[in-house]
Amino acid sequence: MKHTIDVCFSPAMLPMYDYKGAVVVVIDVLRATSSMCVAFEHGVRSIVPVATLEESLAFRSKGFLVGAERKGERVEGFDLGNSPFSFMDESVRDRDIALTTTNGTQAIKAAEGAASIAIGSFLNLDALCEWLKKQDRNIVLLCSGWKSAFNLEDTLLAGAVCDRLDGLFGFTDHRDAAIAAKCLYQVAQNDLLGFLENSSHRHRLANLHIEEDVAFCLVPNQTAVVPVLVDGALVAAK
Amino acid sequence: MKHTIDVCFSPAMLPMYDYKGAVVVVIDVLRATSSMCVAFEHGVRSIVPVATLEESLAFRSKGFLVGAERKGERVEGFDLGNSPFSFMDESVRDRDIALTTTNGTQAIKAAEGAASIAIGSFLNLDALCEWLKKQDRNIVLLCSGWKSAFNLEDTLLAGAVCDRLDGLFGFTDHRDAAIAAKCLYQVAQNDLLGFLENSSHRHRLANLHIEEDVAFCLVPNQTAVVPVLVDGALVAAK
Repeated sequence: MKHTIDVCFSPAMLPMYDYKGAVVVVIDVLRATSSMCVAFEHGVRSIVPVATLEESLAFRSKGFLVGAERKGERVEGFDLGNSPFSFMDESVRDRDIALTTTNGTQAIKAAEGAASIAIGSFLNLDALCEWLKKQDRNIVLLCSGWKSAFNLEDTLLAGAVCDRLDGLFGFTDHRDAAIAAKCLYQVAQNDLLGFLENSSHRHRLANLHIEEDVAFCLVPNQTAVVPVLVDGALVAAK
Repeated sequence: MKHTIDVCFSPAMLPMYDYKGAVVVVIDVLRATSSMCVAFEHGVRSIVPVATLEESLAFRSKGFLVGAERKGERVEGFDLGNSPFSFMDESVRDRDIALTTTNGTQAIKAAEGAASIAIGSFLNLDALCEWLKKQDRNIVLLCSGWKSAFNLEDTLLAGAVCDRLDGLFGFTDHRDAAIAAKCLYQVAQNDLLGFLENSSHRHRLANLHIEEDVAFCLVPNQTAVVPVLVDGALVAAK
């Protein structure tokens, strides 16, 4: 029997899904999961996703770099924020990082109880798909959204995965979300940035002058790494 | 200042929306809100949406016709089910109906607290849009979904409304859902039935032999009636 692939548009809807025995792929394209992919591509050893600023800071005494983003900006007093460019530095090589972000790390928490949790972004799209084919489990693509609301950029990445894996997986009652995500991706794929031009997150982020981040996060296949959660820490899948 | 229009993909997500002062349009294309439009077009005086079978039955002693759908079928012992064709009968003229359905009437309950609640379907699409323009309030298009999960057919109708009202309304943080719904509608509009061919609800309903219902529910503008909730009962808006 075929395994299934579904798309979940918000951590708030995850309880409706049968994800306990599944691989959950957490997606936060702008920018948490993109930055995580960059971090591992640049030699980071592990990333511990935490919920609060306090939890992140507490890891400093254990020799970790600490990262925190709120309202789109690096929180004062932390080594790293949520920009992929902040992880492109030799100083992160072989380091452990504790990280909290508005949406992405919260979505990882929501997925606790899944058989395994992986990190998806456009940056590792093809590598992620190859890895998923080998898992021999049902798959739930979990969009982090914005404070649990639907967002377009995470949906487009989920649609891109569905587009690539179509035919290899079956769908459950949630197939409509997968069909919608795939359709939106097919409309947008030749100009992702243009398609997102009017989206709410772009609008919100425009005030932060991170146009460069947004453009970077939409370029597929910049790394072959697939971060996975092992004992509470993200590491690069072997 | 412009009023806003948003799309909510599931009653489970409605609490994230600022709908208390807004008009909420409840959408359950297959088939509750389509059937409601047909009922008023055929002279029904009022429809009381209720949550349970027991509540519906209790209205019989008050002279109501009673309707109930579960798992897509009319429940034994009730006068009416959820097929639009069951409401195309002279016997419903000037009658009051108590109705419970799997998704549609539950979504109406979820919207309690809105400034007003209206009923939308492809059957009253243009009339609904004209009525919405006159309301002078923010609008939330609430897709009933299937047991609170995202579904395509309700999203397409929400997208059709956004397509028609674009430019007259602003968007809130939930604009991404409206953009997605509108985009999906624009892809699907010339062949709604074909687009839904693989959707989960179609698949589910195929077993019930209601192909005729599905085709009927996708034909726009068969009535000028806009059902609205007044004191707990749906009536045709003046």
